Amino acid sequence: MNLSQRALNVQASPIRKLMPYALATKAKGIKVYHLNIGQPDIPTPPEMIKVYHEFSDKVLAYGPSQGLEVYQKSLVQYYAKHGVQLSTDDIIVTTAGSEAITFAMLVVANEGDEIIVPEPFYTNYNGFATMTSVQLKPITTHAENGFALPDDAAFESMISAKTRAIMLCNPGNPTGTVYPKEDLLRVAQICKKHNIFLISDEVYREFIYDGLTHTSVLTIPDFEQHAIMVDSVSKRYSACGARIGCIVSKNKQLMQATLKFAQARLCPPTVDQLAANACVYLRDDYFTQMVAEYQSRRDLVFAELSDIDGIICKKPEGAFYIIAKLPIADAEDFVMWMLSDFQLNGETVMAAPAEGFYATPGLGKNELRLAYILNKENLKKAMHIFREGLKEYKKTH
Amino acid sequence: MNLSQRALNVQASPIRKLMPYALATKAKGIKVYHLNIGQPDIPTPPEMIKVYHEFSDKVLAYGPSQGLEVYQKSLVQYYAKHGVQLSTDDIIVTTAGSEAITFAMLVVANEGDEIIVPEPFYTNYNGFATMTSVQLKPITTHAENGFALPDDAAFESMISAKTRAIMLCNPGNPTGTVYPKEDLLRVAQICKKHNIFLISDEVYREFIYDGLTHTSVLTIPDFEQHAIMVDSVSKRYSACGARIGCIVSKNKQLMQATLKFAQARLCPPTVDQLAANACVYLRDDYFTQMVAEYQSRRDLVFAELSDIDGIICKKPEGAFYIIAKLPIADAEDFVMWMLSDFQLNGETVMAAPAEGFYATPGLGKNELRLAYILNKENLKKAMHIFREGLKEYKKTH
Repeated sequence: MNLSQRALNVQASPIRKLMPYALATKAKGIKVYHLNIGQPDIPTPPEMIKVYHEFSDKVLAYGPSQGLEVYQKSLVQYYAKHGVQLSTDDIIVTTAGSEAITFAMLVVANEGDEIIVPEPFYTNYNGFATMTSVQLKPITTHAENGFALPDDAAFESMISAKTRAIMLCNPGNPTGTVYPKEDLLRVAQICKKHNIFLISDEVYREFIYDGLTHTSVLTIPDFEQHAIMVDSVSKRYSACGARIGCIVSKNKQLMQATLKFAQARLCPPTVDQLAANACVYLRDDYFTQMVAEYQSRRDLVFAELSDIDGIICKKPEGAFYIIAKLPIADAEDFVMWMLSDFQLNGETVMAAPAEGFYATPGLGKNELRLAYILNKENLKKAMHIFREGLKEYKKTH
Repeated sequence: MNLSQRALNVQASPIRKLMPYALATKAKGIKVYHLNIGQPDIPTPPEMIKVYHEFSDKVLAYGPSQGLEVYQKSLVQYYAKHGVQLSTDDIIVTTAGSEAITFAMLVVANEGDEIIVPEPFYTNYNGFATMTSVQLKPITTHAENGFALPDDAAFESMISAKTRAIMLCNPGNPTGTVYPKEDLLRVAQICKKHNIFLISDEVYREFIYDGLTHTSVLTIPDFEQHAIMVDSVSKRYSACGARIGCIVSKNKQLMQATLKFAQARLCPPTVDQLAANACVYLRDDYFTQMVAEYQSRRDLVFAELSDIDGIICKKPEGAFYIIAKLPIADAEDFVMWMLSDFQLNGETVMAAPAEGFYATPGLGKNELRLAYILNKENLKKAMHIFREGLKEYKKTH
């Protein structure tokens, strides 16, 4: 029985494909510190959990395809706080950011059409592109200059008759880069010139450090017809298991078409939407505290990594990831070795090989993505194990 | 700004696209009996709701891409009760049946490949086919012979070099047909002969009337490499808002490829999986009572429809839908008219135009799908209003 070519080709998640090794390691009684997946350890707001406890509908029914109206209205308020004026018609609630990205690709691009993405990029964009038969065209950015957006000429050289959009992640997963407003305005100009869309993945909106500010694609002047924003509650409320996201655009034709795709899958989960809704009304210091915590973790991990001989990395400005270039040839081999052949007092560390975050063959092979999603005590232990593991690995490889 | 061609082409859900008319009707203070959507009125099992109330994790975390192991194990038990012996590796939990169908299409077919589907079929297959760039090839079945599966010659005549699968819904939405075992064995033979898959949508497994029995594609002997089953908890536990389904196959290569697509979207919702898990342990009389209730509704609706001059319909054997051929030209126009221009004592009825359940242009234009998902008292009222509305409509059209 032959499977489809795309089934054979679709990328195994570099974040998840090594999980069987981690499970085998745990089965041996070894503790694994997970820095491989962006699963925050911060408690989900009790106000959100309370909604599950209070759900009292007799029938757990379908909601509207565009999302529950009560939640759409709350999202309007949430985005207003971030300087984005919306109406409920501009928002379709999705089953997490994953579905929002899939819808965005479907609605702008036909089979074989191209979307330009600065690499390294969130690796699962590859999976969504395979599902929707879209070609991702990577435009390489570099740790050495903070993974800054490439210049106009670099973008222009990538644009073909098949280009339908540029897609950004801001703040960046896995880079931690926060794009300055002037860079976004510049990319918007390119999109307008070529009449293409700008898809902005802003799920790390609140995760901004050192007093920097975030610029949403939705605030770019005179750009409403081009701007598509995808979002998720997973990271900001530490609620990855709720699977609630949204796609936002003021382009009415685009939202009407998106709604038709949304109707095919009927609706996002009902109780999880109600739970996400409660989060919109958290006290403002929820984010102040959370961001302070992540910033101190960022400082810790960056300091630890910077202190290891031969590692190249830049200080992340946002999100909760850092890309580290290692003084070894094969980062995936190192990750597997850490799980299978290394331990320090019965503990080891798992990171995500970065190669899967690049689309250009060969790039990222000696890089890792670390997610700083553990408390500082555990993070300190994990970084110590990481350092000792790397030392040992270099001796033997 | 040009959208993609597929965004322009994707079908607006015939079940949902007329909802704005229903909302406008309700805004005028008119009560609408919804027979247009398969949203059961049966209470969700309290055992399921209780799980939401008891969720006590500190962090609402991602689950595994293949689903929570506890739920996979429960599903193994659930299917064993239905005579299907599985291991957890044969099951990937999905975000409702919608995602299961999408995954099935992606994993068997490339862009432009064909899947043969008896029509009328669950209309949202069209949306999933557009998303995955699969061509659905309809093979028409007829109310007059109970929408029975076509003969071998009809299937053979549809099979091309691009055919990758036959897809069935059993019991059928919208037909209510339960396929006899010998017909399924016959279709399986065709699939084996042509080395293609058989995708079976079995979400209405328990909704079987008159003592008939259901045959799962997974019980067909010597067919393990070809059989793919898609499922959902939405209907059987009246839990449409939970968005939990699964895809099941013993074809290991196929499940490994499916897992890669599943990894791209990370995981299905966590609490909803736990809630679905509780349903596997309901008392057996849960289904006995539910099926008895639906069977009596089926009898009521079928008797009422059969009593209206000029309506052609067959008695459904399963699911909770009935297709009615009306003595008018345009069923969609009738549905809109019922919402906009008709009422009986401040009440009206909404059904789903059946044209969207056919892929062959022109078919189904004078047909409706009615879902008998109201209690018998309301169903009786609704059928009375329907009859009076049709009488009035025929006078004026």
